Amino acid sequence: MTMDNNQTDGLSSQPSDIEKEALQQKAEQQDISAQDSEKLQKTIQNMEENQPQENVHYNLPNELVTRASLVIDANRAAGQRIAVAESCTGGLVMAALTEVPGASDVFDAGFVTYANQAKIDLLNISQDVIETFGSVSLAVAWAMARNAVEKSDADIAVAITGIAGPTGGDERKPVGTVVFARARRDADPNEVVAEQKSFGDLGRSGIRLQAALCALSLLMPDASISQG
Amino acid sequence: MTMDNNQTDGLSSQPSDIEKEALQQKAEQQDISAQDSEKLQKTIQNMEENQPQENVHYNLPNELVTRASLVIDANRAAGQRIAVAESCTGGLVMAALTEVPGASDVFDAGFVTYANQAKIDLLNISQDVIETFGSVSLAVAWAMARNAVEKSDADIAVAITGIAGPTGGDERKPVGTVVFARARRDADPNEVVAEQKSFGDLGRSGIRLQAALCALSLLMPDASISQG
Repeated sequence: MTMDNNQTDGLSSQPSDIEKEALQQKAEQQDISAQDSEKLQKTIQNMEENQPQENVHYNLPNELVTRASLVIDANRAAGQRIAVAESCTGGLVMAALTEVPGASDVFDAGFVTYANQAKIDLLNISQDVIETFGSVSLAVAWAMARNAVEKSDADIAVAITGIAGPTGGDERKPVGTVVFARARRDADPNEVVAEQKSFGDLGRSGIRLQAALCALSLLMPDASISQG
Repeated sequence: MTMDNNQTDGLSSQPSDIEKEALQQKAEQQDISAQDSEKLQKTIQNMEENQPQENVHYNLPNELVTRASLVIDANRAAGQRIAVAESCTGGLVMAALTEVPGASDVFDAGFVTYANQAKIDLLNISQDVIETFGSVSLAVAWAMARNAVEKSDADIAVAITGIAGPTGGDERKPVGTVVFARARRDADPNEVVAEQKSFGDLGRSGIRLQAALCALSLLMPDASISQG
């Protein structure tokens, strides 16, 4: 008895969005010529015109589920399993991943460590590290990602910790500050791959949405992150 | 440095919804007389008319955030902390809880144990129990809830495991079958409080939404559940 499935047919009514984004990402990554770019735009336009938007209802914003679907597809193709450790996004990234039919092919498990004590209890984050660097820090994010890999069967884990507001910010780390980390099972354990971003005060939901989108991008098999 | 906050002002633009639901629940629970019911309906109507709906954007359906907000408020009032263990809902319940400003007052931590191995690794569910009863069973849901309490600082935990589809169902447990369990820290460990529901095939998102709403109801301090 499995509780999910390994088909992607539930999203098949939206291939245009997914393919569009993939194409656009490809274009951005490869810095293609203006002529090629024009061709690409035409392809995207054709896809839009020829594929009427069917009425698919999701519990989450379409852009989030679309990106989650790309993550599932790309990791399935790469034969990699993923895990997530969330603090300020509080489950939003995993909710998006599991909205995608067939998520069980790729998504293994995750932790929502909202309270500091939960970070300590569930992910073995040292209280000293939290006290020294703060719960929104490269050190804590990295330990969350590293331990999420250790405690699961995943090949890659991404961690998110930040200040979604409306309160909790200060001058040094205002509301909208979010730290991301990415850990690979086979990586050098001393390799710290974490990044701090400032989304500004987009409101609690807005900050959480942007943070979740960013975390999903980091779950792509070939994602890179600046050195923290 | 804390990453969230302890104010509820972000939801203050929607008191009518929240209070309406609370009043309606009260009416249902207490089986009040028709006359009282009429008074109540009038109160609700007045609240609706006098409180123009402000434009609050959430990442999740309003009904989910509204119910999550009730859960946070009621548990704050009861001085109880909560945890969640999710399988088929994959983080949706926790995403709703943490969409509410001030969630950190009440929400401690949670587990998304999507793969069977994750249930074993993260929540110490016995492989024997999974093999004997299936991952969608009262036994597994109960163990998930019990161990979520044990592994967190929460007073109450709710677990959700089910078949969101589109595949994974069979004749005995069709798509839409979801099992819930509720554990209290101070409860008799032999007290099994779990329930199996059949939502029917509402589609993957529809089943997940109904399951999340049901789980949130079970997180109310005075929630009861049928004996499994």
